[in-house]
Amino acid sequence: METVPQIGFVGFGEAAFHIAKGLREAGVDAIAAFDINMETPTLGPKIRERAREAEVRLVRSNAELAEGASIVVSAVTCDQAMRAAEQTQPHLTPRHFYADINSVSPATKQSIGRVIDQTLARFVEIAVMAPVPPYGHRVPILAGGVAASDLAAILTPFGMRIEIVSQEIGLAAATKMFRSVVVKGLEALLTECVLAADRYGAVDSVLRSLKESYPGINWAELTDYAIGRVVVHGERRAREMDEVAETIRSLDIEPIMAEAAARRMDWSAKLDLKRRFGGEAPAGYRDLTRVISEDVRD
Amino acid sequence: METVPQIGFVGFGEAAFHIAKGLREAGVDAIAAFDINMETPTLGPKIRERAREAEVRLVRSNAELAEGASIVVSAVTCDQAMRAAEQTQPHLTPRHFYADINSVSPATKQSIGRVIDQTLARFVEIAVMAPVPPYGHRVPILAGGVAASDLAAILTPFGMRIEIVSQEIGLAAATKMFRSVVVKGLEALLTECVLAADRYGAVDSVLRSLKESYPGINWAELTDYAIGRVVVHGERRAREMDEVAETIRSLDIEPIMAEAAARRMDWSAKLDLKRRFGGEAPAGYRDLTRVISEDVRD
Repeated sequence: METVPQIGFVGFGEAAFHIAKGLREAGVDAIAAFDINMETPTLGPKIRERAREAEVRLVRSNAELAEGASIVVSAVTCDQAMRAAEQTQPHLTPRHFYADINSVSPATKQSIGRVIDQTLARFVEIAVMAPVPPYGHRVPILAGGVAASDLAAILTPFGMRIEIVSQEIGLAAATKMFRSVVVKGLEALLTECVLAADRYGAVDSVLRSLKESYPGINWAELTDYAIGRVVVHGERRAREMDEVAETIRSLDIEPIMAEAAARRMDWSAKLDLKRRFGGEAPAGYRDLTRVISEDVRD
Repeated sequence: METVPQIGFVGFGEAAFHIAKGLREAGVDAIAAFDINMETPTLGPKIRERAREAEVRLVRSNAELAEGASIVVSAVTCDQAMRAAEQTQPHLTPRHFYADINSVSPATKQSIGRVIDQTLARFVEIAVMAPVPPYGHRVPILAGGVAASDLAAILTPFGMRIEIVSQEIGLAAATKMFRSVVVKGLEALLTECVLAADRYGAVDSVLRSLKESYPGINWAELTDYAIGRVVVHGERRAREMDEVAETIRSLDIEPIMAEAAARRMDWSAKLDLKRRFGGEAPAGYRDLTRVISEDVRD
């Protein structure tokens, strides 16, 4: 059993950088990365700067990455997840784990799993359950696949927080995606509720009433938080919910609520609320309703 | 200060019947009702039977009702709330309370308030916050208007549960309506989430994940409950959410989430889920997803 893993990132964007940095600090010496954009004028400088900061060795190909790594982590943009797997696959051997941490649909995770299964490398599906930056490598993770517990046994000693959900591929991604229906949907509901209720000065009495029905939630706090997320992350959340809606539609279920949540998030993006609040969450719901009322009056 | 009120119901449907019955049992002797349908062959027999059961005196006109009552309660169908006020108004005097308990929009409550204010009767806006039948006259109620606390002082001793939200008219109705966005929206979210997640066997892991994020809610229990509501009350909830959506639209806010919730409820009504489950809530979410899967296979 190896104790200090050699880790290779395919793709070295924000998520990979923060995870790599945390792992380096936790004592993982051998970390490399290969990023197809590392020589481009637009992204190259940022990638090289981050590699220096995290003390990550940049390599020039998937082959070189696989050669120096026992754990290959795919952390590319979502639409490149399959391609990254296909390009890395020829270089994988039975000594490799291939962990896909991209936010893709359960069906895509399963397809990627089939590509990797053509080698004898061990495929692990990873769903990252929170934004990486505040947590680094300690971000809560769900993992699935027959090799998931072996991978967790290697990485947990370095502080990674990996919960195994299933031996089957797809369940971790499904958990993340369909959980979003509720979490982001609730943010959208609270935002719409407050926009309307505030016109009658009824926000506080609505929140009081919700508190009576669901005393386990601090509704006032949750509402301000939800509105902050919709304002600051509207654009990104809209695209996430588009993906979720598409996945639901592929199951022959009409994504009524998921699509609506995407549209409520898009509303925030279209009103450019993030910029108008200086990139910060409003201090409270009243800041949002004031801005919206001003729009109506203009 | 009067201690035993004389109560007159305009409209004697299910809500009025259950409230009247409870008040009679609690010691209110003088209860009358006027219902424009009491002589019709379709509704008349039911109305008379209920009046007998609740020991409520049926009268033949708004005038007769007002004459024998100090508190006039409007409990008609929602689209008749304004008409009931207009027809009763000429018979009201300063000794009357006029309490509108119909589920109408805040704007309609305000319009009704203006009609009643042309008399010197005291208008009280009432929002009934739960289904009446299980509670009877003890159903949780929000009340608004300058006379709300006087009315509450008369009725509370008989067991009614009246919370005053404002001296202004509209806030109680707004609280009820916009609270629905969250409560019924959440039911719709959970239903859609489960339909999708179940295809990957991911419902339990989604609920576990939600429980980690919001430990104050029993998500498994709430989900089964929500699905039960969508199955049994889909049709009624769809119409309620249509009303809420219309009210939000009248405020120049696009009712994205409210409309989506209405459509998710309508989905249940169109699939005739209530009848297919024998009018009962499914025992658990798996009963619903099994039925839906059978539809897809058929």
